[in-house]
Amino acid sequence: MRTGISVQEAYDSVLGSAQPLRGENVPIFDALGRCLTAPVVSQRQLPPADCSAMDGYAVRLGALGSATPSNPVELRVAFEIPAGRAAHQALEPLESARVFTGAPVPRTAEAVVRQEDTEVNGDHVRINICPAPGEHIRNAGEDVQIGDEVLGVGCRIGPSEIGVLASLGRSGVEVHRRPRVAILSGGDELVEIDGDVSGGRIVASNAYTLSAACRMLGAEPLYLGIASDRPESVGQLFRSALAADCIVSTAGVSVGDHDHVRPVLEKLGCRLDFWGVRMKPGYPLAFGRFDSVPGSGNGAGPLVFGLPGNPVSATVCFEQFVRPVLLRMMGRRDLWRPILEVRVVDRLVKKPGRLHFVRVTLERRDGEWQARSTGNQSSGVMTSMARADGLLIFPEEASELIAGATAQVQVLDESFFTRDSAGF
Amino acid sequence: MRTGISVQEAYDSVLGSAQPLRGENVPIFDALGRCLTAPVVSQRQLPPADCSAMDGYAVRLGALGSATPSNPVELRVAFEIPAGRAAHQALEPLESARVFTGAPVPRTAEAVVRQEDTEVNGDHVRINICPAPGEHIRNAGEDVQIGDEVLGVGCRIGPSEIGVLASLGRSGVEVHRRPRVAILSGGDELVEIDGDVSGGRIVASNAYTLSAACRMLGAEPLYLGIASDRPESVGQLFRSALAADCIVSTAGVSVGDHDHVRPVLEKLGCRLDFWGVRMKPGYPLAFGRFDSVPGSGNGAGPLVFGLPGNPVSATVCFEQFVRPVLLRMMGRRDLWRPILEVRVVDRLVKKPGRLHFVRVTLERRDGEWQARSTGNQSSGVMTSMARADGLLIFPEEASELIAGATAQVQVLDESFFTRDSAGF
Repeated sequence: MRTGISVQEAYDSVLGSAQPLRGENVPIFDALGRCLTAPVVSQRQLPPADCSAMDGYAVRLGALGSATPSNPVELRVAFEIPAGRAAHQALEPLESARVFTGAPVPRTAEAVVRQEDTEVNGDHVRINICPAPGEHIRNAGEDVQIGDEVLGVGCRIGPSEIGVLASLGRSGVEVHRRPRVAILSGGDELVEIDGDVSGGRIVASNAYTLSAACRMLGAEPLYLGIASDRPESVGQLFRSALAADCIVSTAGVSVGDHDHVRPVLEKLGCRLDFWGVRMKPGYPLAFGRFDSVPGSGNGAGPLVFGLPGNPVSATVCFEQFVRPVLLRMMGRRDLWRPILEVRVVDRLVKKPGRLHFVRVTLERRDGEWQARSTGNQSSGVMTSMARADGLLIFPEEASELIAGATAQVQVLDESFFTRDSAGF
Repeated sequence: MRTGISVQEAYDSVLGSAQPLRGENVPIFDALGRCLTAPVVSQRQLPPADCSAMDGYAVRLGALGSATPSNPVELRVAFEIPAGRAAHQALEPLESARVFTGAPVPRTAEAVVRQEDTEVNGDHVRINICPAPGEHIRNAGEDVQIGDEVLGVGCRIGPSEIGVLASLGRSGVEVHRRPRVAILSGGDELVEIDGDVSGGRIVASNAYTLSAACRMLGAEPLYLGIASDRPESVGQLFRSALAADCIVSTAGVSVGDHDHVRPVLEKLGCRLDFWGVRMKPGYPLAFGRFDSVPGSGNGAGPLVFGLPGNPVSATVCFEQFVRPVLLRMMGRRDLWRPILEVRVVDRLVKKPGRLHFVRVTLERRDGEWQARSTGNQSSGVMTSMARADGLLIFPEEASELIAGATAQVQVLDESFFTRDSAGF
């Protein structure tokens, strides 16, 4: 097991261990936000037949060459084709057919004239323009042909893709399975949300934060509860987590007397890859994996993240390492948050040797993004995490970012780029 | 009722009619992504007591002034305070107490020395540094005081906010109700997803697209099915939708003989505000509202959107008008998609008089965003909507955007700004 590795080495390790999960067939609404494991090939053509794009009259062109508003041409309305009925009759040269948007046009029709450009006169219609060939006719197969690969492997299903699938009659689709993430906490000071907090006890809030973060990504959190500070309790909780795709524990992975997670994991057969990443917050992060566990959906056993117990440290470690791993398991290719280049408003200092993720707020000013520390960077202060727009990357070897320096910020707020006006 | 209004007039009308929905108390996990209707005021202080930020030894400072690695000071380990136990004993000047991360420190402790900076010697510990006053002690209330407004009205609940709420022992919270959106389709050519598509019939795919779009926003779609092209059928479906917060129908709102939606709505008491917006796709959009309907959660009756039947038109109208309305109902302030200024790669032309929303793909090149039409802009071609990164705004009075011109693009793809690397 390596200790004290760099952030980049930790990224390489965790992402190198993560594989996209197998596909499963789900109803299309359950596929929303998920990625295809198999291409969607159409067994239909769309539109299914030549059809009208407008309410109006299907016509042949021969008789209409001279039609103008002042010199309309009158055609007999031979029949009507409502939407959803096949068009079996053909049009004779001086005939028209009443058609509606989406309705098939007669086989011999050469264009559709919008009803705005016509005037009804008994069983005849006066046409006052000469349409272009094919005007307002949508040809059979114009959108999709039989055999077309309409959505490719890896495609993420959004509302438009749901619409495409529906129009092809596909009520189910094969997407990557959602990762099951077992979440557990450790520490005698921890209680559940409605627990008694006298005597310095605190709520195991990390489990709530991390469960919510999993849900936001589309993963399935499995909350396993709180282990006490005894190895048997820690071991029992981990054993119950072995069927998950990923285990995320918080606290209990440092070097204190009460930190039983590492020995317990090793005893259960976990191959620990590293402990300790040169970052702040979040140094005491452990990562390993089980090579095989019966009952695991992916063949291999679960990945294991032992996150620090401090809420901010746990959240930052989740952001950097667990989030991209879960996204990769779901077949996503865009694993990382948006990055902005920003200007540092107030000087930042630290000791070299660890990369700092500085919680910052961002403001657009003078044509650039300005970043300001949220203040107290103590890793217990979760409210500052809630207030932060992003994490500023203060590189490992740097000791100072002067006011006015540029830096990179990972944008955490999902709605950060949205606007309060339509933009025009 | 106004007809042929501008896009801006339509924005003003629909947003002027939308109000945030009332609050409801929900379990915190159901609040994820939703906005607070009442501030969250803490009834606890966090940390609950002065506590240790590290595993180590709580000490008084007096005896340690001279401690260095080569000249350590030895203190008696008087007692141990596990996490989750109150610290009742006080430290005498030459005593220390074994403490663990998150555990309360004794009342008289002045600092915590990390165990890495100590050496145990029987029931004594050798300390080889002199800590600063308060070092590694997190003070009671340092993060949150009793009475602090921790999260304000309008705050959107994400994972960090869930963690903050959990740490305060708040298992429920008051957020804006999710809008119930009744979705219905009209047209004899329409069938459900598993229906028979012979004779030119097509799946009512808009209902699927729009239901998915509602879900993505956090609204509750209520799918009411397909009305036939008879006024009684349309009326029956609309009556069953009156308890919703918003009704979205597609097709049946144009000027054709089979378009029964407008007369039906008027007969039911809907006050139609406009029909027809100077845009493409999406001109035949109708909007109105019911001033009061018994059983509606918001006092007033539902807002009604009659969207065009063409899939792309329906989706673009939803984007421009229904989406911001639903977000406002949910108490959101960021109602609009991200906007990018882009360079137009290929010349675009149109007739003046309607604003065009052009489906484009975006590419970052030479330090700028370049926009390219997805090709066929027919409003039936839903696959081009699925392929588009955004909608380029081709202004109403313009007739040409030359290659190299700049334009604004509404970015539709939620993951557009994410990265394929950590960014450093």
